[in-house]
Amino acid sequence: MEEEIEDDFSTWYNNIIEKTGLTDKRYPVKGLNIWPPYGWALMQNIDSVIREKFNEKGYKEVNFPTLIPKSQFDREAEHIKGFSDEVYWVTKGGSSDLEEKLVLRPTSETAMYPIFSLWVRSHSDLPLRIYQIVNTFRYETKQTRSFIRVREIHFIEGHTCHVDYEDSERQVMDDIEIWKGIADSISIPYIMERRPEWDKFPGAFYSIGVDTFLPSGRSLQIATIHQYKDNFSKAYDISYTDEKGNRKLVHQTTFGISERLVAAIVGVHGDKKGLILPPSVAPIQVVIVPIPGENVIEYARLVLKKLKSKGIRAELDEREQYTPGWKFNDWEEKGVPVRLDIGREEVNSGSVTISLRTGGKRRVKLPYLIRGVNSAFSEIKETLKKRAEEKMNGYMVEITDLKNATGQMPNVIFWCGKKECADTIESTGKSILGSLEGEGKCIVCGSPGKKTVISKKY
Amino acid sequence: MEEEIEDDFSTWYNNIIEKTGLTDKRYPVKGLNIWPPYGWALMQNIDSVIREKFNEKGYKEVNFPTLIPKSQFDREAEHIKGFSDEVYWVTKGGSSDLEEKLVLRPTSETAMYPIFSLWVRSHSDLPLRIYQIVNTFRYETKQTRSFIRVREIHFIEGHTCHVDYEDSERQVMDDIEIWKGIADSISIPYIMERRPEWDKFPGAFYSIGVDTFLPSGRSLQIATIHQYKDNFSKAYDISYTDEKGNRKLVHQTTFGISERLVAAIVGVHGDKKGLILPPSVAPIQVVIVPIPGENVIEYARLVLKKLKSKGIRAELDEREQYTPGWKFNDWEEKGVPVRLDIGREEVNSGSVTISLRTGGKRRVKLPYLIRGVNSAFSEIKETLKKRAEEKMNGYMVEITDLKNATGQMPNVIFWCGKKECADTIESTGKSILGSLEGEGKCIVCGSPGKKTVISKKY
Repeated sequence: MEEEIEDDFSTWYNNIIEKTGLTDKRYPVKGLNIWPPYGWALMQNIDSVIREKFNEKGYKEVNFPTLIPKSQFDREAEHIKGFSDEVYWVTKGGSSDLEEKLVLRPTSETAMYPIFSLWVRSHSDLPLRIYQIVNTFRYETKQTRSFIRVREIHFIEGHTCHVDYEDSERQVMDDIEIWKGIADSISIPYIMERRPEWDKFPGAFYSIGVDTFLPSGRSLQIATIHQYKDNFSKAYDISYTDEKGNRKLVHQTTFGISERLVAAIVGVHGDKKGLILPPSVAPIQVVIVPIPGENVIEYARLVLKKLKSKGIRAELDEREQYTPGWKFNDWEEKGVPVRLDIGREEVNSGSVTISLRTGGKRRVKLPYLIRGVNSAFSEIKETLKKRAEEKMNGYMVEITDLKNATGQMPNVIFWCGKKECADTIESTGKSILGSLEGEGKCIVCGSPGKKTVISKKY
Repeated sequence: MEEEIEDDFSTWYNNIIEKTGLTDKRYPVKGLNIWPPYGWALMQNIDSVIREKFNEKGYKEVNFPTLIPKSQFDREAEHIKGFSDEVYWVTKGGSSDLEEKLVLRPTSETAMYPIFSLWVRSHSDLPLRIYQIVNTFRYETKQTRSFIRVREIHFIEGHTCHVDYEDSERQVMDDIEIWKGIADSISIPYIMERRPEWDKFPGAFYSIGVDTFLPSGRSLQIATIHQYKDNFSKAYDISYTDEKGNRKLVHQTTFGISERLVAAIVGVHGDKKGLILPPSVAPIQVVIVPIPGENVIEYARLVLKKLKSKGIRAELDEREQYTPGWKFNDWEEKGVPVRLDIGREEVNSGSVTISLRTGGKRRVKLPYLIRGVNSAFSEIKETLKKRAEEKMNGYMVEITDLKNATGQMPNVIFWCGKKECADTIESTGKSILGSLEGEGKCIVCGSPGKKTVISKKY
């Protein structure tokens, strides 16, 4: 069944996200999509997981303006170079030209850093750790794709300032911990690599990319952590007075995550029947399907009440125009992780039948309802994780000759780190994501190299 | 003490919102402000209250794009006329001119309604009730003021479609119920009136305004409910097939609330010492201030843990560089509704001292901690409500001669409803907000009129 998705992942993906109400692509501007209730609830639940993990590590949530004046946007040369082709410009207010043109934020460095230079005065103001969950804008000229490449992006961006490079490096470690927590909560496997020089974020000292793989075999960058050193603090004069009274530049990091997590959840966990949503973020965690019979509805309502009283996102499907079988398929397609079937048998025996979207059924007595549902959640989380890891490992084929590069699938090679070898490697049509642990001979020149993943990228 | 705020409310307001971290006005574009952590947490808590009330009445949350193509924006003539002077235009992407100019949403009718015409097909799709919490944009040329008149607005907008006018009128009643719940939760008193014809929302059949009054005496519109009838559904072709197979236009309503609720909370409840935040939305509901002494910190941490385990937003102020007295003032200024003082006496007697920001102190034994804090919350809510209602009623002076119109304060008059009388009334510099229950002679022409509130407006 898995093969069918892999064969034509793109068609499956485009179809399932609209059919289940995650997105509506009929908005009359390319690359701008609508979040209908189901999709928006999923994104908000993902945001809640992210907020929790950021807050635990001392980040504070803020919200900066969307519009950035040209003069601020223009202050860090590398950064502008990276973004100038893909920003939207606001040039008019009413019928008059604006005195100063405004950029719709593609990311918020240039909105925040002039203010950071006011917020940071002394070493006691550091570290500064803030994040925001906002919409950012990119004037994409490439083909757009829901949740993956869009022109208005739901974006989570963390920004930090530190007394020195060492402390900003500790932040990178903290951010990696945060990421691990998020990925674990939604059972998404990933690889994490330092990007090659030519692929780092515009203005960064170095960039760490987090990639997962969709059934097409293409890699999807789902998070990035950037070390800026003092590149931006120089341009925006973000400095502090240390204990000895000396003026010093701060060192900065950023951490970016986006709506691509929705794409990852859909693509990594989905199957022929539809979505499979991790219980941590599913808009509906439990759906109750009544099998018509005496006292069934009353009993089902009691079960619903019990679930809701424990904060479980549950729904009772009372629609009369559909059969239970039709409902089973409908909720499976929508990816609801746990289904409770309630019919005469359950009513008579004072129990419920718990069906897991990942497979398996069990009957539990009513007093064990909450325990049974929670253990189903844990089991689903683990099953999703295990399956996804196996799939991802299966995609990655090690090769020792570039001629054997396998079609759409990623490959594992060894690479020496030199640009000329990279050019040869990337002439296969696959990009170098970055290097992992492991040593071997460079696939091009034979000199000592590191284990490196190459893939076609979204 | 109240007088001092009223004497120079504007200075007090501008000072307190920055000093307590509700906003930062130093962003280098007029009318675009930053939400720092404390202000953003307050806004998010208000959003949570609003979400709960909307969801209870069957609304579903969605999220539509920020950018609206000119051709969609131009479809309802009255609406455009009302907004064309105050929209921002996106005209360029990268270095090239866009094929079609895009408007930054000033409100989302023109983004949503082309899609509603796809979502609504048959009577079974109705009623449609959706809302979103987004940023909207107005190119304000008037003086800007934080939370009151800004260029990027945090906005909550409900949009509904109905089979007929009667059903849309029922929605207006539902929206009034929702509003009551929100206002009650934050103890904000208000008057609610149908706006005069010339003051209704562009494109509406009629508009209901909800106004509160700040200590300056000026009215602040904090919510609006609009009946659109089929004005927009005609322009956007939102129609459905009824039971008999006939094609019919839907009737629509909207419901708007904004960050002005922050201004209302600050202005209506604040006093000389600073903010007073309603417990329902306060970012910190309880602050614990330790009075240094043996075992105090350990005991205070235990109390903190108990509060947090019950979902109470609590903080323990362990800062060593400040005295308890300094901390008392600091937290009072920030408006934290409940303070717990813990010193040797409390430790020895196994109790805490609960101080209410609205006045009053009591000591309770530890086993009664949660009950004591919750009852303090209820008391604060009621006190805020009572005080605010008394203040509002005090502002409104009834007059029978326009010559006696009282400076900045609102007045209550009788008005016959005619435009020429309104012109005379409004020549006082005060605007007609709308009419309430109560009959009397028109203050201008003497013919039968309705009780009417006039005020200077924000």
